[in-house]
Amino acid sequence: MARYQLTIEYDGTAYHGWQYQPGVPTVQQEVSQALTTCCREAVDVVGSGRTDTGVHARGQIAHFDANPDLNLERLRNSLNGILPPDVAVVLAVRVGDSFHARFDACSREYHYRVSTAPVAIERSQRVHIHREIAFDQMNQAAMALLGTHDYSSFCRTQSETRNRVCTVEKAVWIPEWEESTSADRLNLGGRRGDWTFVIRADRFLHGMVRAIVGTLLEIGYGRRPQADLARVLAARDRVAAGPAAKARGLTLHHVSYNTSGAR
Amino acid sequence: MARYQLTIEYDGTAYHGWQYQPGVPTVQQEVSQALTTCCREAVDVVGSGRTDTGVHARGQIAHFDANPDLNLERLRNSLNGILPPDVAVVLAVRVGDSFHARFDACSREYHYRVSTAPVAIERSQRVHIHREIAFDQMNQAAMALLGTHDYSSFCRTQSETRNRVCTVEKAVWIPEWEESTSADRLNLGGRRGDWTFVIRADRFLHGMVRAIVGTLLEIGYGRRPQADLARVLAARDRVAAGPAAKARGLTLHHVSYNTSGAR
Repeated sequence: MARYQLTIEYDGTAYHGWQYQPGVPTVQQEVSQALTTCCREAVDVVGSGRTDTGVHARGQIAHFDANPDLNLERLRNSLNGILPPDVAVVLAVRVGDSFHARFDACSREYHYRVSTAPVAIERSQRVHIHREIAFDQMNQAAMALLGTHDYSSFCRTQSETRNRVCTVEKAVWIPEWEESTSADRLNLGGRRGDWTFVIRADRFLHGMVRAIVGTLLEIGYGRRPQADLARVLAARDRVAAGPAAKARGLTLHHVSYNTSGAR
Repeated sequence: MARYQLTIEYDGTAYHGWQYQPGVPTVQQEVSQALTTCCREAVDVVGSGRTDTGVHARGQIAHFDANPDLNLERLRNSLNGILPPDVAVVLAVRVGDSFHARFDACSREYHYRVSTAPVAIERSQRVHIHREIAFDQMNQAAMALLGTHDYSSFCRTQSETRNRVCTVEKAVWIPEWEESTSADRLNLGGRRGDWTFVIRADRFLHGMVRAIVGTLLEIGYGRRPQADLARVLAARDRVAAGPAAKARGLTLHHVSYNTSGAR
């Protein structure tokens, strides 16, 4: 047996998240089934972490064990031929036998996309904000998230996770468009009014990003004071935070490993 | 009566293009119908130009005439409430009575998106390139497009347009991702392997962008020499160019006017 790593992109709209659950479509099940077909042996796939119902991924990482003689280019093409169109294997590489997609991940980055303008294209990935919103206030508030804190206030109450301490390295709303038309690279795609919240941390609790975004939006709308985030963190109680933001704005963008694991 | 200008975004997947055609769904018809309902009078809407079946728009511009007392914020919200989810009015402004969405446009910019990696998210806007492709060769070749030329070789043969001279200001493939992670603004969204062809011209003939992209892709694949584009242009014959690239990669990104027209 040998260990392999997959980079997987999916549009989560039609799935009950990554993780296998009986009776409902999940991405993990689709990928495991496709691998089992391609490898002609029962294959289980282990992801870097769950994503919730309706949440997307650009760079979900997973590992599996199979025959050491796999042709990886052919495997990737076969998998993409079998997988539904909303799931794609971007990359397949061989990794060391001890590599673990979840335990070895040192940070994850999520993106949450909103637009203050009405949305028609990519509407399954962008949430339309209907009211006035102050991104500068949200960015001031988001600075309270940086560093190592107990994130119980942003963790789903049913979660069984005991350790709720996370280290947030980055938490910032970034405009996707650029006023200047001088630099080609900056002038791509971005539409006035489209913003992305980028958050990177060593780990995330269940529902954490959506609870953070939901609370920040309340600050942006002026319903909560800008300084409220520190109070919410200190409360260590989910009811102190705002409602979860809609799932469809959220994408697991990237998972980082100390060593790539690839050999 | 007063004249108004709309900025319209649409996912063209389900439409036979912008322009009204009997018996098939078109974006122009959807917008005219919605305006007629909202304004309580028969309203015709005039676009900056056609888009083909399956082609998208981020910034289609259109004008219409209606009652001078329209509340534009309310109109926009009403239109978006009536329009199907794949068509959105981004902006509605009043313009001078002589403003014309088509005749006053001084340039249009189209984007064509491809990816060398398999695609799951935004797959109705990106075309997966399955083989080896040389973007540097395509960019060298694309320089032959710049300036004023007769574009008959890139015009659909059934087109009734007599004047086939266009002035192309910009024609370049741009990578959407950035190696460096230092600048937040550059590190957004872009996935390794995603490229956008940006082309801006004073006018475009029927099928012109897709014929250009199709020909450039053949150069990128090594099927045509890099210098072929000048020969194709000089031929003034559609058969000299390559096949039309798939519609779904193409988006009308922006239409420019010498004066905004807004008053």
